[in-house]
Amino acid sequence: MDYQAYFKTRLDALRDDGNYRVFADLARKRGNFPRANHTSEDSSGEVTIWCSNDYLGMGQNPDVLAAMHTALDTVGAGAGGTRNISGTTHEHVLLEAELADLHGKESALLFTSGYVSNWAALGTLASQIPGCIVFSDALNHASMIEGIRHSKADRVIWKHNNLEDLEVKLAAADPDAPKLIAFESVYSMDGDIAPIKEICDLADKYGAMTYLDEVHAVGLYGPRGGGIAEREGLMDRLTVIEGTLGKAYGVVGGYIAASVELCDFVRSFASGFIFTTALPPAVAAGARASVQHLKASNVERDSQKERVAKVRLGLDAMGIPHIPNPSHIIPVMVGDPVKCKFISDTLMRDYGVYIQPINYPTVPKGTERLRITPSPVHSDADIDHLLQALEALWSQCEVARVPMAAQ
Amino acid sequence: MDYQAYFKTRLDALRDDGNYRVFADLARKRGNFPRANHTSEDSSGEVTIWCSNDYLGMGQNPDVLAAMHTALDTVGAGAGGTRNISGTTHEHVLLEAELADLHGKESALLFTSGYVSNWAALGTLASQIPGCIVFSDALNHASMIEGIRHSKADRVIWKHNNLEDLEVKLAAADPDAPKLIAFESVYSMDGDIAPIKEICDLADKYGAMTYLDEVHAVGLYGPRGGGIAEREGLMDRLTVIEGTLGKAYGVVGGYIAASVELCDFVRSFASGFIFTTALPPAVAAGARASVQHLKASNVERDSQKERVAKVRLGLDAMGIPHIPNPSHIIPVMVGDPVKCKFISDTLMRDYGVYIQPINYPTVPKGTERLRITPSPVHSDADIDHLLQALEALWSQCEVARVPMAAQ
Ligand SMILES: Cc1ncc(COP(=O)(O)O)c(C=O)c1O
Ligand SMILES: Cc1ncc(COP(=O)(O)O)c(C=O)c1O
Repeated sequence: MDYQAYFKTRLDALRDDGNYRVFADLARKRGNFPRANHTSEDSSGEVTIWCSNDYLGMGQNPDVLAAMHTALDTVGAGAGGTRNISGTTHEHVLLEAELADLHGKESALLFTSGYVSNWAALGTLASQIPGCIVFSDALNHASMIEGIRHSKADRVIWKHNNLEDLEVKLAAADPDAPKLIAFESVYSMDGDIAPIKEICDLADKYGAMTYLDEVHAVGLYGPRGGGIAEREGLMDRLTVIEGTLGKAYGVVGGYIAASVELCDFVRSFASGFIFTTALPPAVAAGARASVQHLKASNVERDSQKERVAKVRLGLDAMGIPHIPNPSHIIPVMVGDPVKCKFISDTLMRDYGVYIQPINYPTVPKGTERLRITPSPVHSDADIDHLLQALEALWSQCEVARVPMAAQ
Repeated sequence: MDYQAYFKTRLDALRDDGNYRVFADLARKRGNFPRANHTSEDSSGEVTIWCSNDYLGMGQNPDVLAAMHTALDTVGAGAGGTRNISGTTHEHVLLEAELADLHGKESALLFTSGYVSNWAALGTLASQIPGCIVFSDALNHASMIEGIRHSKADRVIWKHNNLEDLEVKLAAADPDAPKLIAFESVYSMDGDIAPIKEICDLADKYGAMTYLDEVHAVGLYGPRGGGIAEREGLMDRLTVIEGTLGKAYGVVGGYIAASVELCDFVRSFASGFIFTTALPPAVAAGARASVQHLKASNVERDSQKERVAKVRLGLDAMGIPHIPNPSHIIPVMVGDPVKCKFISDTLMRDYGVYIQPINYPTVPKGTERLRITPSPVHSDADIDHLLQALEALWSQCEVARVPMAAQ
C-alpha cells in the first residue's frame, strides 16, 4: 500500500469539504491580554483574541505567574517521573487537597489534562466495575466518549439534556446492574447547561453513580468557582466532579474530585494515570494559585458576566444570530464551513480580530459557527471594534440575520 | 450496588497482594539534584533520588529554566485553548520544527504527553487506514497497547525483540493488507534494546510502516540525542519516531516525528490531539531549550554512561543481581513484591535513599525490582552510599546474590 498517497487523499478530501484546519500561530502578550502577535506565512502583527478558553485571563494573573516562577526556582522544570516513580511532588499533593476542598469532596486526583482525566476515569470506572452500564448524554465531549468506549462497558446514549429519555432508559435497564450517568454542566459548543439536580434525582431513584464534567464551569460559576454544581448547592450529590486546569484556571491539567475510595480506585487501576510522567510542579503550583485566587475573588467572574452581556446586546442590536444560553459562551451561527472560514480569515486579516471558525468534527456539519468568549480582559473599545467588524462582514458575506421579532 | 464497598474490596485485595502503591511526596532541590525533601506522615527530611527518569538532570539545567521563566514573562501561563482554537503558540511551532530536525524528519507533532502521543498516533493510524494490521512487540508500553486497542484494528503480538517470530507473523498476513510494526528502542523496565535495523528490513520486505517509541532514548543516545535510531544511522528508515519531553529532556510532553503528510493526517484525525488544551508555551520553550542543549552537548551523556558503569561495577562486586543490558537502566532484581517494598521503605527510612519498588502491573509478578537510574547529578559519594546501603540490606533481607562465576 502507498501510505503517503493514502494520507494525501484523505487530507485533500478534508480540504475539499472546507474542513481542513489551519492553526493560527500566536504569541499572547503577557500583561496585555487579549492582544497577541500573529505570525503567518506572509506577515506578522498584533491581533485581539476573541476565542480563548482562558476565560478569565488567569494566564497573566500575577499570583499564578509568581507561583510558577517560584516553583521553577525551587524544584526545577519537570516532575522527573510518573506519579508512582519519583514524580509525585509536594505541589501535586497540595493541589489535590485544594481541588478536593473546592468541590467539597474527600479527595481529588490529578491527570495530565482534562481529556485524560475523562478518558482514564470513565474508562476505569466503567471497565473495572463488572456489568456497569454507562448512560452517556448524546453531546458528551470526545474525551468522555473515548473513555466509555475504551471501557467496553454497555453504553446507553440518552438525548441531550433530556430527562424523560434518561429515565426511560434507566428504567429499562437491569435494576441490579451497576450504573453510571455521565454528563457535562456547561456544554462548550452551545453553551447550554444540564439539569443537574433532576439528573441526580434520577440517579438516586435508579441507584446510579453520577459523573459530571465541569470543564467549562470550574472557576467561572459558584461563589468559590466550584462550578454549576456549587452554584446550585449540588456538589455533594455528585459521585464524581471532573474539571480542567487549562481553561478558566489558565494553566493546564485535569482532575476528578470524589470519595477517598473512588479516587484511590482510579489511582490504582487507570493506565492513563499510572503510566505517564506527572505534570511539572510549576504547573501544579500555578494551577493551585489560580484556584485559590478564584476561590476568594469574584471580580473576574462578575466582570466576565458583564462583558458577555454587552457583546450579546450588541449582536442582538445588529440581528446577528447567536444561540441564547445561560452561560458565558456566545456561539454565532454561520452554518457553512467555507463561509465560516472566510469570515474568520477576513476578521483576522482586515480587522485584527481572531475568532477561530468551529467546523466539523467539533460541531455537526451545517452548524458551523464563530464561538466568541468575552472575558474580563476585553475593553469596551475591543467590544465596539468586534461588533463593527462583524456588522461589516455580515453585510459583505450575506450571512443570515435574525428578524427582529424573533429575537 | 454498594459502589464504595466494591472499591474498598478491590483496594484491600491490592494491599493483601503487596501491590498497593504509596506515592512518595517529594520536593526536589533545584541546583542540588538528586537531593529532595521527602514529606511523610510522621516526618520530613532530605533524601537522594535514585529512580528519576529525569535521566540527565535537565530539570535543573539553567538554559531550560531560563527559557521557561522568559516564556512565563512574555506570553503567560497556559496556552488558553486547544491547538485549533487559539492554543497554538509560536513556542509550539518552534518546538515542532526543532523536533523534526532532531530526528531528520520533515515534520513533528506535539501532544500533551508521551502517553497521549502513542495512544493518539497509533490509535489514529491503525483505525483510519482501513484493514490495517498492527504488529506489536509483546512488551510494548501500556500507552501503545491502549492506542492499538482503541483503533480496533487487527493486532498481532510478536515475541519481544524476536525477529523470527515477527517474520513468521508478517509472512502469514495478507500481503496486500496495510501493516504497521510498533516497537520501542530501549525497553524501560529491562533496559534491553530492539534490533531496529533488522525490524526495518522486515518492514521493507513486507511493505509495513514502522513506529518506534524512543521515549527512554531521546536525549540520551546518538551524537545529537536523537535516540538509538540516530546512533545507528537508521532514522530515515523509520516511518514514525515517537518521543517524550518528560524524561531525559526534563520537562513534560510527547511527540511524533514523521513525514509532513503523516503528521498532518494525525493532526487532522486524532481525537486525543484535537480535543485538549495545548501544552503551556513555557513548557514548550523549556523543552526546546533542553533539546537544543542536548543536540550540542555530550557532557551529560558521557557522564551518565560513566556513572552507570560505576554503579554496575559496584553491584557486581557485591554479587547483587541486576539485568545486564546495553542501556542506562539498572534493574536490580528482588522477585517478591513484599520484600521489594520492604527494602525500598528501609532504604528511604534508614539510609535516605529513594528507589521506588517496581511491582505488578508495571512488571510481571515475580520480577519485582528496584530500578536504578544513575545520572550526572550523582556524585562518587552518592554511589558509595547507595552501594553500602544495598549491601547492608541484601544481607539483612536475605535476598539472593549471584554466584561470582555467573556474573
Ligand atoms: C467538555 C470538555 N471536557 C474535557 C475537555 C478536555 O479538557 P483539557 O483541555 O484539559 O484536556 C474539554 C476541552 O478541551 C471539554 O470541552
Ligand atoms: C515506553 C514508554 N512510552 C511512553 C511513555 C509515556 O511517556 P510520558 O511519560 O511522556 O507520558 C512511557 C513512560 O511514561 C514509556 O515508558
